[in-house]
Order: sequence, then C-alpha cells, then structure tokens
Amino acid sequence: MPDEPPKGRPVPPIELRSDVLDLPTRTRKPRDSGLTVVVDAGLGVRATADLLETAHTYIDIVKLGWGTALITSGLKRKIQVYRLADIPVYVDGILLEIAMLQDRLDSFLKYIEDHGITVVEISARSVDIERARKLELIKRLTEKFRVVSVVGFLGSQTMLTIDEWTSRIQEELAAGAWKVIVSGGERGTSGPYKSNREVRIGVVEGITQVIPPPHIIFEAPHRKQQAWLVRRLGANVNLANVPHDGVVTVESFRLGLSTDTLPHFHKNKR
Amino acid sequence: MPDEPPKGRPVPPIELRSDVLDLPTRTRKPRDSGLTVVVDAGLGVRATADLLETAHTYIDIVKLGWGTALITSGLKRKIQVYRLADIPVYVDGILLEIAMLQDRLDSFLKYIEDHGITVVEISARSVDIERARKLELIKRLTEKFRVVSVVGFLGSQTMLTIDEWTSRIQEELAAGAWKVIVSGGERGTSGPYKSNREVRIGVVEGITQVIPPPHIIFEAPHRKQQAWLVRRLGANVNLANVPHDGVVTVESFRLGLSTDTLPHFHKNKR
Amino acid sequence: MPDEPPKGRPVPPIELRSDVLDLPTRTRKPRDSGLTVVVDAGLGVRATADLLETAHTYIDIVKLGWGTALITSGLKRKIQVYRLADIPVYVDGILLEIAMLQDRLDSFLKYIEDHGITVVEISARSVDIERARKLELIKRLTEKFRVVSVVGFLGSQTMLTIDEWTSRIQEELAAGAWKVIVSGGERGTSGPYKSNREVRIGVVEGITQVIPPPHIIFEAPHRKQQAWLVRRLGANVNLANVPHDGVVTVESFRLGLSTDTLPHFHKNKR
Repeated sequence: MPDEPPKGRPVPPIELRSDVLDLPTRTRKPRDSGLTVVVDAGLGVRATADLLETAHTYIDIVKLGWGTALITSGLKRKIQVYRLADIPVYVDGILLEIAMLQDRLDSFLKYIEDHGITVVEISARSVDIERARKLELIKRLTEKFRVVSVVGFLGSQTMLTIDEWTSRIQEELAAGAWKVIVSGGERGTSGPYKSNREVRIGVVEGITQVIPPPHIIFEAPHRKQQAWLVRRLGANVNLANVPHDGVVTVESFRLGLSTDTLPHFHKNKR
Repeated sequence: MPDEPPKGRPVPPIELRSDVLDLPTRTRKPRDSGLTVVVDAGLGVRATADLLETAHTYIDIVKLGWGTALITSGLKRKIQVYRLADIPVYVDGILLEIAMLQDRLDSFLKYIEDHGITVVEISARSVDIERARKLELIKRLTEKFRVVSVVGFLGSQTMLTIDEWTSRIQEELAAGAWKVIVSGGERGTSGPYKSNREVRIGVVEGITQVIPPPHIIFEAPHRKQQAWLVRRLGANVNLANVPHDGVVTVESFRLGLSTDTLPHFHKNKR
Repeated sequence: MPDEPPKGRPVPPIELRSDVLDLPTRTRKPRDSGLTVVVDAGLGVRATADLLETAHTYIDIVKLGWGTALITSGLKRKIQVYRLADIPVYVDGILLEIAMLQDRLDSFLKYIEDHGITVVEISARSVDIERARKLELIKRLTEKFRVVSVVGFLGSQTMLTIDEWTSRIQEELAAGAWKVIVSGGERGTSGPYKSNREVRIGVVEGITQVIPPPHIIFEAPHRKQQAWLVRRLGANVNLANVPHDGVVTVESFRLGLSTDTLPHFHKNKR
C-alpha cells in the first residue's frame, strides 16, 4: 500500500491569520466552549493525516460514526494519529446502546479501554433505555471516563417538549455528564430540526433560555444548520456531527469568512 | 508528488469484532452473495489505499465509473493496488456501449486486456443495442471474461414490465452472465427507483419472486435504497453502485449497526 | 503524520485515450477556452497530490474556496504542489471583499504576494462595492496580477437584467479582466440558476448572444448545470466552482462519456 505508517511527528501549529484581516475572537484548545465535534465515518489514515495537518486546531473531539469503529480496520493506528494531535476519540453511542440491548456492556467497555478511548457517549437514540438506567450509567461511567450524554432520539418518534428537553439535560449534567448533546441525528432531520432540515427555532431558543449554551453541544450536520447556530449563538457555539470535510467550512462560519455569516461579524452595507 | 508508489505489501486482514457484540452472519470473500460492488469515480492512489486498508473485506468488485477509466491517469497503478487486495476491477459498460456505437469493440477489448481487466460489464443503459446482439455479445465474451450484464436503462425511458425484467434477466443468465445487475442508475432514479429515489417496491418484489436474489445485483447508490434492500432481502443482498465513501455505511447496514437497520437485526423495544 | 512532504517530482503527463474511442476535440493547456476552474475547499496535501496525479490535465486554475486560505494550514506547501503541475491558484474574492470592508487591502495583497499568488479574483458577491471602485481596482491590479472578475452576487438579492449582465461584463473586460466569471454561487442557486438549481436558460442565452463564451466563465457547481452548459455551449465551455471531486465528471461530460452528454457527441438511435 502507498506511503508509510504514521511517524511520531506531531502536527504543526496553525496560526489564525488575524494579521491579514480582523477576525472574531475564538476560544483556544483545550476548549470548554466553541467546540467542534467531528464525525469520522471510516476515514483512512492518509485522509486523517490530511485532515489534521490542515485543520487540527479546529477539531476538539472526534466521534467514530455509528458502527464504523467495529467495522473498519486500523483503528488503533488511526486513534494514534488523532492522539498525536491531542484529539480525543469516542465511538458513536449506538454501539453502547446495542451492548445494553445484548447485555454485553462489559465486553463493550473492555473493547474501548483496549483502544485507549477515554470519552464515552451515552445515548438512547435508537434503543429504548429507561431514564433511571441511563442516569445511573452516566453516574457509573463518569468514574472512569469523560461522559458525553445525548438527549433526543432519531427518526419520527414523538417530539420532546421544551420542558422534557431542559429537564433531561439538567438531570444528565447533574449525573456527571461533561456536556450534553442535543441530538439532531446524523442527517439533521430530528430534534431541533424539521424533516426538511430547517431549524426548529423554538426548540433551540427554549433550551438555551434555560441551559447555558456552553453546557450543551448541538448536533448540526448541515451547513445551513451550522451557519444558523453560529449566527444565533455566536462564533463559539458548540457543534457536533460535523462531517470531516465540513470542519473548515464550520470554522469559516465561526469567523465570518463565508457569505452565510459575514454580515453577522463584519459591518456591511448590503 | 507526496509519498511513494504502492509497494508489494498486501492489505492486512480485517476481523469482524463479534467478540464485542453479536452481529448478523456475513458471507466471506470470495463471495457469491452478499456482494458489494463499489464505484470508483476517479480516486487517486492514496485514497484507494486508504479505502482498501480500511474496508477491503467489504469490497468484492470495483467499477471504474462511467468514462473515468479513459480519462484518469495512473490506471494500471491503481488496478495493481486493487489486485494486491484481490479485488477485480471492471470499466463501466458505457464505454463498451460507445465502442459498439462506433464499431470499435476490438480496440476497446484490447484496451481492457492490456490493463489486465478480467470482468466485463455488458449494458445497454445509454445506447440502444438490440437484445439479440447483446445476448450474442454476452455468449461471446464469457469465453474470455467474467461477464456482468445489466438490465434496465437510464433516464426517463419507458419502464420495463415485471415480465420484461424477469425474462431479460433469465435470458442473460442463460447466455452466460455471472450475475445480472438491475440498473438503478448512477443516481438511483431509474429502474427500481422513482425519480425521488424511493424504492418501487413492486419492481423489487416482482423480480425477486422469480429470480433468486443471489443471481442479481441491485444498483443502490443511495443510503435509503441500500438500507431498504438490506431490510427487505437481508444482510447478504448483492448491492452495486455503492460510492467509495459509502462502503462502511453499507456494511453497517448489513450488520444492523445503524439506526436504519438496527431494529431489523437486534430485538428492540422501540 | 503519514508519508513525506511533496518532492520535486513533476506530475506525469495524461494522454487522452482516443486510440480506444473517438472523442470530441478538447483544447490543451495552457487553455484560453475549455477552462475548468476547481474549488479547493481545504484539501490536504495528499488529497491534492491524488487529484493532480489523476486529473491535472483537466484543471486550469484552482480557487481556494471562501475563507479557507486564511484558515487552513500548509498553504505554501499546497501551492507548491499545484505549481509542480503548472496550475495557478487564487483565493476566493470574499477575502478581498472583506479587506475592502475593513480598509485592509494592502495587508491582503501583501499576504497573497507572500504566497506567490499571481491571480486575483475581484468580486462583490457578499459585500457592496460601487461599480466605479471595482472597475478602478480591476485596472489597478491588472498591473501586478492576472485578474479574474466576478459579476453577480449571492443569495436572494434582486436579479440583474440581461443588459446589466452584459454591460457589467463588457466594462470589466474593458478594465483589463482576463476573464469575467458569471456568479452562480457556491451552491449554484443564484445568477444563472434558480433556487432549485435549474438553469435560467434566458440568462445564459442572453449573455452569450452578446459576449463570446471564451471571455466568460460560468460558475457551475452542480453536475446538471455542468452537463447543461456542455450540451448548450460545447465541450470547451469555461466552467468554474467545479468541486475537486467533480473534475473527472466534468471532463467526462466534455467528452460525451456520460449519459448526460453522450447523445450530444455520439450519434445514437435512442
């Protein structure tokens, strides 16, 4: 196969070119807000290296999308490439959901520990998991892992009310979750988004009026959703489910370097 | 240009992690069913190596999409990379169709033999080729090549009836085709799919009631089409026109590791 | 990180395989018409090398998409890789627009000169810039750079009339622009395209009846737009905003090696 395995060489630093243009202020890594959580849907090691050399400064965490962690080869090698850039990796909560369904939680936890994974996503997107059981799992796993929990589920299930959104988020933060993800789905068609991917403004505003935005991460796979959230919640909104080839686009939204957000950050007659 | 040409190093094996979760049974390579035929739309050699190292176990054949084989550079080098992973390559039938139109079949066949290509796709998707001439071509080329023939055509032509689908498939299998592809088009908007990409359930059921699924390969470029076919025909349905960046997604559908197929493979209260 | 930095090795030549099939005549590099201007939205150096080794013959100029030039790392290294293939690079006009807005034109020009960039895109897509000021800027920058100017703007602004299109294009050519780009936007939903991406036939015909097509470049990010323009204006129409993974597709359109344009170039009963 072409080229060499990853060497110990760390990624080079990336400097924001504010010497060229005035740009909005961005938080710096390790970030507590302004997070970009990227989905790796089975990248090869060369594409991963390309991504990191180009944009590692803008990637805070990587999620190995849905079942890809169990399917793709060279996972330890890829996690090593991410580690060289100080980027933690976690596997999509669906694997933990299936493990719960199959009563194989222990083999799942052993698997991620074997891979040196230190962040766990606890979700009930596709599998029914009682609230009490989920909260207890968050409490338990926070002892060993940094826990990112997910509120909301996929597909056409009944919508949560604003009260359900906020009370569940508060419960999971209280149980020890580092951040709570507002699930919009892999395709951005559930939770705070309509089936046509438009933002349900009332859901986003209802949640953020009660929960300070730094505590939550909005799944926003689509550029219009990303741009809307940056305009509404600022350059340092937390975003997840950002596709690997959307990282630079999201950063350009945060910096007002795209038409979608330019008028928001730079005074403009138009 | 960065990095080195492909070395003789074969791709490493990929082990399904059924030690972690219970997964549906998949056929193993070389497969007669459960085939995934991937479209290479002009990948570079590094991206090809990334794809193979990550997922070669899930790729049975590669089609060089539409005219790309004639346009892109480094074709022999890329075919060598696929050969290292024991993956046969063929060129999209449109080139053979144009060769028939131009009466240049011999120069086309010389071209693919020069590239060590052993599989031929015989289609009449874009060019009118009489049935008798197509069947005679299948018979003739089976002597030198493994023939994959295609029933159906692109665009807004009149639909085939179920009887036409099944009789044509049977004729082409009888003429010596290894498998017959049910054409859904590069964008999944013809044959068994509506222009909005929804599955024409009657077409799929009508064909599979007469022809055993292992004999046919469904072109299914879109994830919803892939997931529907896996739910309807099982983990080991034959799928073609899978984009290179959809290979891992398709495998996750086959294994119930995505919300789209999880309830089908894993008992679930929801 | 995997593999090595780019070496001095030039890209290998790519030969059109007209020995295999009869193909339409294409202009050769350096082209004055038949241009394909590709958008690089933050490619890593390996993906860039893959693209060039595979298809450099079909890439005339590369635009570093919207703000990516200011955000991504390794820019000089990437520009060097393009230079090895004799492909000039320019940065999306939005950065010059913001520089004008911030009265930082000098620091912007210093930045691109530091990077050895010799082509400048002068646009008013997202920022209001008076016609007189834009024309004066074109005049001034033609002394140092090859100027590509852009007529049209993004989003839902009022449409230009045919007279406005043609008079502005003529003014900018008279001011010294090498080519004038007809802006269709990054998503192909403005200028000569409707919000559903369909071509506004009247706009394209109205412009090309007055301005010879070799003087203009049509932004055409979507395959249906690309195929329509090739059918309407021929194999050697100038196209811009072609995504990096669409270069081979566009060339297959130009050569009639895709169903979308095959009947136009190859006599066909269907």
